[in-house]
Amino acid sequence: MIHNFTLVHDDIMDNDEMRHGVPTVHKKFGMPIAILAGDVLFSKAYQIISDSKLSNDATTQLVSRLAKACVDVCEGQLLDVKMAEEKRIPSQKEYITMIGKKTAALFDVSCSMGAICATGNQKDISNLSNFGRNLGIAFQITDDLIGVMGEPKITKKPVGNDLREGKKSLPILMAIELSKGKDKKVILKAFGNPKTTKNDLKNAVDVIRSLGIEENVRTQALEYAEMAKKSLSKYSGSAKTELIDLLDFVVKRSL
Amino acid sequence: MIHNFTLVHDDIMDNDEMRHGVPTVHKKFGMPIAILAGDVLFSKAYQIISDSKLSNDATTQLVSRLAKACVDVCEGQLLDVKMAEEKRIPSQKEYITMIGKKTAALFDVSCSMGAICATGNQKDISNLSNFGRNLGIAFQITDDLIGVMGEPKITKKPVGNDLREGKKSLPILMAIELSKGKDKKVILKAFGNPKTTKNDLKNAVDVIRSLGIEENVRTQALEYAEMAKKSLSKYSGSAKTELIDLLDFVVKRSL
Repeated sequence: MIHNFTLVHDDIMDNDEMRHGVPTVHKKFGMPIAILAGDVLFSKAYQIISDSKLSNDATTQLVSRLAKACVDVCEGQLLDVKMAEEKRIPSQKEYITMIGKKTAALFDVSCSMGAICATGNQKDISNLSNFGRNLGIAFQITDDLIGVMGEPKITKKPVGNDLREGKKSLPILMAIELSKGKDKKVILKAFGNPKTTKNDLKNAVDVIRSLGIEENVRTQALEYAEMAKKSLSKYSGSAKTELIDLLDFVVKRSL
Repeated sequence: MIHNFTLVHDDIMDNDEMRHGVPTVHKKFGMPIAILAGDVLFSKAYQIISDSKLSNDATTQLVSRLAKACVDVCEGQLLDVKMAEEKRIPSQKEYITMIGKKTAALFDVSCSMGAICATGNQKDISNLSNFGRNLGIAFQITDDLIGVMGEPKITKKPVGNDLREGKKSLPILMAIELSKGKDKKVILKAFGNPKTTKNDLKNAVDVIRSLGIEENVRTQALEYAEMAKKSLSKYSGSAKTELIDLLDFVVKRSL
């Protein structure tokens, strides 16, 4: 599912022709094939669930949660498109609501589906659902940070890419909110301006860095990571260790 | 589901900007919104099934059949795209295989899902599945006939539209196969030629008409309709009458 959204939907939204240095499906095979590939993956997920050897009760729960998550992801993606179109700068709360659907719903369902298959206990399902949701938000916040401050050699995207594209992501919302006078002008000059010079873009990223946005955003991501950890407090063992390692990687990564 | 495919996928494949005189979703709202709308409808189908008050056993069967049908439709659509791209003229058998997936799989699953909900009896499910499949093939064959011979005032498409677009549909395959000498030249001059004059197109359609293609195609559609009817032979009552009426409408319609 995540490949479906990454390779087809997200890219069409972004108009990206490359993703992490690799051509996107719709660029390589054309739009009709890309849409069909996405739809096949979509259907395959439900086929795998219904053909599994799980109880019919577990199957119903899995389908219900997955379908709800898919609707949420579409709604979140739509909120993202609308946010990008509007001139208005959204609040941080609106941004969190949007990524809660666009990204975290998929992390949430991936984790809670694991719990449904493993124990089927409602408390476990709820714990894993919360873990996934907070992991997803921490992931997206960090991803959006990298989209602005990321090292081009690692991200394979130009410096300040999301700023130039006018994305209304958390670090950018914070930077616009916190900056004043000349600093604000430097940021707004580059924001959503496809013709920004490399130098203007670099200046804007330097201003954002000087405002302490990176620390601020990383702190927020860590808060969500802490909430995620709390959901696993009653568990132990190697599976828990791996989930915590994943969480740590997500908030500390630079790619 | 059928709206999803009609409004989003099929139109992208056809590059249509209008459908039955109404702008398509991707034309009116743009590609990202159209894809999201399709995905939401996709997910809503599974959500409705899993939230229904049916037994978990019925739910599993419904999801399994629907997911399989969606994969088949995508495969059929892909076969259609490939067929259109290739220079080679496919056989009638290849055409039937393609529409069996692209169109009939959806009619099949729509009917068999009804049987799963109504009785859950395997014989009923199999009968309704066969009814739907043959109804779907009869529908598509007739639809493709209208695409070539249809009256523009009714279809809201230019005369001989599918011929000009180079579609490898049954009436066109038959016409190419049966025609000889000058007749064949007239048909091939218009086939897949976007610059064909209205007059050349009219001549080609007249030749196709004179070859008796319409009667030939309608006979094939009726054969599938007969097979569909046979699947309902053990039933009676108003539901059966309505299904038979639908079948008759599908093969006799001019739109």
